[in-house]
This record gives sequence, C-alpha cells and structure tokens, in this order.
Amino acid sequence: MKNIFVIGAGRSASSLIRYLLDHAGKNEWKVTIGDLSKELVESKVADHKNGEAVVFDIHNASQREKYIGAADLVISMLPATMHMDVAKDCLRLGKHMFTASYVSPAMQELNDEAKKKGLLFLNEIGLDPGIDHMSAMKIIDELKAKGIKLKGFYSWCGGLVAPESNDNPWGYKFTWNPRNVVLAGQGTARYIENGHYKYIPYNRIFTEIRRVDVEGHGTFEGYANRDSLSYRPIYGLEDIPTMLRGTLRMPGYCYAWDALIEIGLTDDTVKIEHSEKMTYAQLMDAFLPGKGKDVRKRAMDFLDIHVTSPVMERLEWLGIFSEKQVKVKNGTPAQILQELLEEKWALNPNDKDMIVMQHHFVYDEAGKEKNLYSSLVVKGDDMIYTAMAKTVGLPLAIAAKLMLQGKINMTGVVVPVMKEIYEPVLKELEKSGVTFTDHLD
Amino acid sequence: MKNIFVIGAGRSASSLIRYLLDHAGKNEWKVTIGDLSKELVESKVADHKNGEAVVFDIHNASQREKYIGAADLVISMLPATMHMDVAKDCLRLGKHMFTASYVSPAMQELNDEAKKKGLLFLNEIGLDPGIDHMSAMKIIDELKAKGIKLKGFYSWCGGLVAPESNDNPWGYKFTWNPRNVVLAGQGTARYIENGHYKYIPYNRIFTEIRRVDVEGHGTFEGYANRDSLSYRPIYGLEDIPTMLRGTLRMPGYCYAWDALIEIGLTDDTVKIEHSEKMTYAQLMDAFLPGKGKDVRKRAMDFLDIHVTSPVMERLEWLGIFSEKQVKVKNGTPAQILQELLEEKWALNPNDKDMIVMQHHFVYDEAGKEKNLYSSLVVKGDDMIYTAMAKTVGLPLAIAAKLMLQGKINMTGVVVPVMKEIYEPVLKELEKSGVTFTDHLD
Repeated sequence: MKNIFVIGAGRSASSLIRYLLDHAGKNEWKVTIGDLSKELVESKVADHKNGEAVVFDIHNASQREKYIGAADLVISMLPATMHMDVAKDCLRLGKHMFTASYVSPAMQELNDEAKKKGLLFLNEIGLDPGIDHMSAMKIIDELKAKGIKLKGFYSWCGGLVAPESNDNPWGYKFTWNPRNVVLAGQGTARYIENGHYKYIPYNRIFTEIRRVDVEGHGTFEGYANRDSLSYRPIYGLEDIPTMLRGTLRMPGYCYAWDALIEIGLTDDTVKIEHSEKMTYAQLMDAFLPGKGKDVRKRAMDFLDIHVTSPVMERLEWLGIFSEKQVKVKNGTPAQILQELLEEKWALNPNDKDMIVMQHHFVYDEAGKEKNLYSSLVVKGDDMIYTAMAKTVGLPLAIAAKLMLQGKINMTGVVVPVMKEIYEPVLKELEKSGVTFTDHLD
Repeated sequence: MKNIFVIGAGRSASSLIRYLLDHAGKNEWKVTIGDLSKELVESKVADHKNGEAVVFDIHNASQREKYIGAADLVISMLPATMHMDVAKDCLRLGKHMFTASYVSPAMQELNDEAKKKGLLFLNEIGLDPGIDHMSAMKIIDELKAKGIKLKGFYSWCGGLVAPESNDNPWGYKFTWNPRNVVLAGQGTARYIENGHYKYIPYNRIFTEIRRVDVEGHGTFEGYANRDSLSYRPIYGLEDIPTMLRGTLRMPGYCYAWDALIEIGLTDDTVKIEHSEKMTYAQLMDAFLPGKGKDVRKRAMDFLDIHVTSPVMERLEWLGIFSEKQVKVKNGTPAQILQELLEEKWALNPNDKDMIVMQHHFVYDEAGKEKNLYSSLVVKGDDMIYTAMAKTVGLPLAIAAKLMLQGKINMTGVVVPVMKEIYEPVLKELEKSGVTFTDHLD
C-alpha cells in the first residue's frame, strides 16, 4: 500500500483527486486529502474506500508531521507561496513532493539535498507551467533530432469560457485565482523578436496584442506574459531570435481591460477611504478626469470612444457606471474590481470552461520557412470538473502514478522538460482527451 | 558644554552643519559630524574649533554606542529607512533625536517610551515635510482664531533650478535623491476637491496637472502628491472639502516626463538583459511599438506628437535617441534613466537651485470667498549651499538650538504642527531669508 497525501481540495484539485481515487484500487494506494474546509474535502473524497478526508491546517506543524510522515508522496495544491513548509518537511521526513507551481529560488535550493536523499521534487507539472513545457519540448526535441534549428517560438495559453457557455461580452469567467487575473500584466513584459529585445510596460500590455488563430476554434487575442526570455535556457533555445509566451483572451477582452487599467481600477497600492459607502458611479467619479454627474460621458471622453464601442459595451455590462453599492470596505481599486468581477464572472453549475493552448514554431526546412502550429483545446464538464482542473490536475496525477509505479526514476528539484517524463505523461493525457493537433503551414 | 551628534554630511546637511558650527561658540556646543566619507565630513567641519569630524558607519553598533552615548542630541540626516537603529539607541541611551523625515509607524511606536524618558523625537522638521507644516499651521491657526473655517487648502512645493542657472529645456537639476524623482508618482494619488474624492493613477499623474502662479516668479505646473488625504487630521482639517498637496515643476516638464512613463522608461521591476551593450537608440527600439530604424519617428508616432513638440525637444535633449552607450549593467529602465539624468541634470559648481512653496487657502469671510496665497521662494548660493540644503537643514538646526536653550519643552514623537515649535522656528528662519509672502485675492 502506497500513501499519497494531497494538500488542498479547492478549485483546481477536483480532477487530480478523482484520478487518484479512480486508480487507487488497482494500484493499491491510499489517498489522503487534507483541506481547511471539512465540507469541501469530504465532497471530493465522497466515501471512496481508498480515500480519507482530513481537516488539515498547513500552519499546524504537528499535523504536517503526522500526515506528511505517513505519506510516500505529497502533492501540494496550495498557493505557490505556501509550498516551502511542506517542502522542508518532505525533505526532512524523506518524502517525494509534486507541485504545479513555478520553482521558486527557495525550492531550487533544496535540489542537492533532495538528490542526496533520493527524493523527487517535481514542480511545474500542471497546465501552464506543465503541459506547455511537455508539449513544447516534445516538438523541440523532434525538430532537433532532425537537425532543425528553430527561428521562432510563440507559445500561447488561456483559461477561457467555452463559447456554448458564454453569456457575457468579455468571453471570460473565473476558473483560476481571480486576484492574478486582476493584477495581470503589472510591471513590464519582456520578449525577443527577430533578434530585437522587446519590452512592453503595463500601460500598453493589453493594447499591443496579437491575433492568434486556432483551427476549428476561431480567433483569439494574445498579450505578452511577464517574462519570455528566461524560458530560452529551460528549453535549450539560448540563441533563438524570436521567443514570446503570452496569454489568450476572447476577442475584445484586451482593449476593454486596458480601459479599466487607464481609469485606474486595477491599482492595488491605494486604499479608497470608505469605499463601502460609495456606489460604482461615485467610484468612477473619483477616478475619471473632468467633472459632472454623467460618468458614462466622462468615461467616453477620457477613453475617446463612442457609446457603441465594444469597450463601452463591456464596461457597461460590468455595472461600473451604476448606482450599485461597492461592498469592499476601505478597499484598493483592485480589491473592489475583483469583488465585482467574482460576481459577474462566476461560473454557473453547468458552465463549461475551455483551455486553449497553441505553440507556433518557425524554422527553415529545405530552404523554405515552415510554420508548425500545435494546438490544444480542452473543455470542462461542469463547474467542478473544469478544463482548468483537468489540465492542471491530470499531469500531476499521471506523473504521480508513473513515479509510484517506478516508471519515473529521477531525483532532485525537477521540471518536466525531459523525455523520461513528458513522453509517458503526454501519452496518457491523450487518453483523457488532452490531445494536441498539429498543423504545418 | 552640550554635545550635538549629526549623522550624515551629504548634500542636504551643508547648511545644517554650518549653522550649528556658527552658533557653537556662543552656545557652548560641541558638534560632532559622522559620515562614511572622511573627505566629505572633513570638508564640512573644516577645522572648526567646536567641530569634530568622524568616520562613522551606522551599521557599527559599538560606534553608535560611542557617539550617540556622548551626545545630548542626535540629528539623523540618513535616508529615512535607516533612522530606526539610531532611534532605538537614542531611546536606550536617553538622547533626544531630530530628523527631517516622515514619521514611520516604527518611529511612532517609540512615542510612549520617549515620553516616559523625557525625550523629544522631533521629525518632519525639514522643508517638505517641515516648513510646509509650520507655515501652513501658522495660517490655519490664525484663521481658526478669527472663527474662519477653511473650504480649501492647496499646498505646492518643488525643488527646482533657479531661472538664472537654467540651461536645459526641463528646467530641472538634481538637488535631492534622484531615485525618488525617477520613481515619482508610481501608484495612485489621492486627494479631495469640492467634497469629491479624487484618485489619479500613474498613467495620468503627469498629465492631470494644474497651473500654479507665484507672484513675481511666474508660472509653474503642479502634479498631485501620493496622499493628500492623510494630512487632514494632522492639520486639524478633518472635514475640509478640498485638500490637495502637490509637487511643482517648470512648465513643460510634466508632459515630457509622462512621455518617458508611457514609453516605459521609469519602470523599476524588469531587468534589461545586457543593457550595457546597448545604445540609447537600441533601448528605445526595444521599448517603442512598431518597427524600423528611425526610433525618433516611432516615438513621435507612438506619442502622437510633431517633431517641433516641446515634449520631443526635451526627449531629444536627453539623448535617448542617440548612439550613446548605456552604462548601467543589466539595469532596470529606471536605473538606466536615472544614470542618464544624473549626468544631464547635474548641478554645476555655481548653479543656484530654487525652492518654491505655495499654500493656497480658500475660505469665506463676510459673505465673500477669499483666496489667500502664501508663497516662499528660496535660492541657493551654489552647488553646496543649495536652497534645498538651507530649507531642509535650517529648520532642524534652529529647532536644535531652541531645544538645547530650553525654549522647546516637549517630549515624545512629535511633528512641528504646534505653535510652541513653529512660531520661534519660522521667526528665526526669516532672518536667514526663508520668508513667506502673503497675498489675498
């Protein structure tokens, strides 16, 4: 009997937990799920005979000792900033650990000791990071084997709402941390294109967008992620002249989001005194230049748009010009906006979300420029088993199975860019409908 | 013999040190000046018989113990973040402490204990904060005594270059921390006007500017400071419907600075890989939208300005389109810009800087709206005895004298908003040419 301890039973853990429980009998696993919420964790385990639901507080060291100590493998679905307590306990108690988060410098520091103890600390094995690394490396390695040198690599990913469940002009609902969506793009994005380094500051990141076509699924718009440059060494593409990673949104989203930025509603540094006593119209009055009661008109003047503008349609739909009351007390603009969006962009029980990923490789072959597109579209089942939960959770679950079956034998702090991991994981993901379609132009 | 220990002999300490040494004989003071730089501190003490120059490292606890222990009063001219080690030693060793910095929450926490020990921790006794508080409170108290209730209070201050020393289109040279100038306005500014809360995010702070006329000195432009709201309780103006504090610049500065922001050159979060291998023109290529070698044209297209625009004149003067090499290695845009500005905006030895401050009070008297303007213009002598050094250092020095003479008898963590301090300090400042001119409209 092998013991798996999953920490966190929230939004993105549903598919992970279901997969582990579905495979627990045959593999002789015991799967323990810990979460602060008794109700949540019990709903996910649902009396499965190989499952155990426990109320678990990550800040309780003796609870950590008990449950991590009893496990062979710990999977942390906690927010990225909370992994380190778990990681240190895993190291001390001699347990493997998997996460879907980026390797932090603190995590990276554990590499030598993890290796010494024969432990695998596998990170970035979710969707993005995760499936993006694996599917990209598969093609990069294939092209390399053919002696082909990449000229360009564009990689896009977005967690969206499926067209059939879309009932709002933004084409967006939350399937992931809302705060990250509200604060997206702050700072300056960097990438390289045709040998030119490019930097885009926050005030332009949602307007310097690209059109991204995905065969059979229409057109999306993409904005640049914070840092495309640091992926060059990870993918073994140090000298590639074009490398851009970005986020996909439905058409029209980005310019409308930029309007919220320009107005100032995404700032998280200033507190709005007595925000809970304001209406959204009063909030707009406080932010928009000019004077006068007609905040719609002031917004259109400031943004230089017409009442029929698609940007205006989206702002109007949010209700930011309405007499509705702000709920957040002394909140920052970002907190107030997030609260509004969590209401407006909530998934309904039967809504299907949609993950879209596309890699676009540019290279020369036989004297001609080729464009290889490799695309993935996954739809969710409902508001619990979302495409986000599947694509984040299944790679983790599959990698867990492979390791416990002795089919992955690595140690140290690892990300899944090597064939030993990506090949079997991608193969099994295909069985769950996580399948890339390639298209050569 | 009373001992005064001044920590820091840099840019803004010149006038403070000179005043203390000038008054040391008559008052029987010994003035010890500590700084990391032997050369700097010796040049400021210049063998004065009541002065002692010591090489002093704030991070050296035994040095702190020695020099703070020997003092009656410690004046810290260190950067604001470095006061706390000094403050804790002062508390422990029973010494008074003065600074020209804002009271931090950590400093405020020492209030009770300082009171208990009979110590005065006087802060915000420089220019801004400092002279602004004192000169404003004098008029606010006078109006209050007449039963007048303020409707509005605008307060502006700027450290500029005097017109006779101005040789660049920005009308600006550094007399103060360059980094603060480069990062100015990041976040969101808040104030209140006619009972409406107003918030201005970074992308608009240098374009939503006001015209500020100072009699006899022409017109300036003012942008809003980060937080005007928190000054209402400090000044006893909790219910005032208009309160705005801001920074003055020469006309044309703000729109040109906004162009640097829009391009992305003030961001301090992203590192420019191999920036030291780039020219400024290449840096602009990396930041400007579009393609092509003519970065001037791309800048004009992006900013939507003509080649004759005053914004373009200022950008061109900086040399940001030139083939000049960037010096900073792997720097952020803000670091690179700062390095360039420190070269371009350096004071020449005989340059005179200029401090401009204006308070504008609005109130009703005898059924008529009155506008009272109280303005201060101070010019520097040269690049050492700048107007900035005078207006920051003299209030500190004068307050030190008054306290050591027993004319200020307060304890605890204090800012100079009470008559007991501002009246004698302002009176003596007038003797040094720091004189406000009032004008009623």
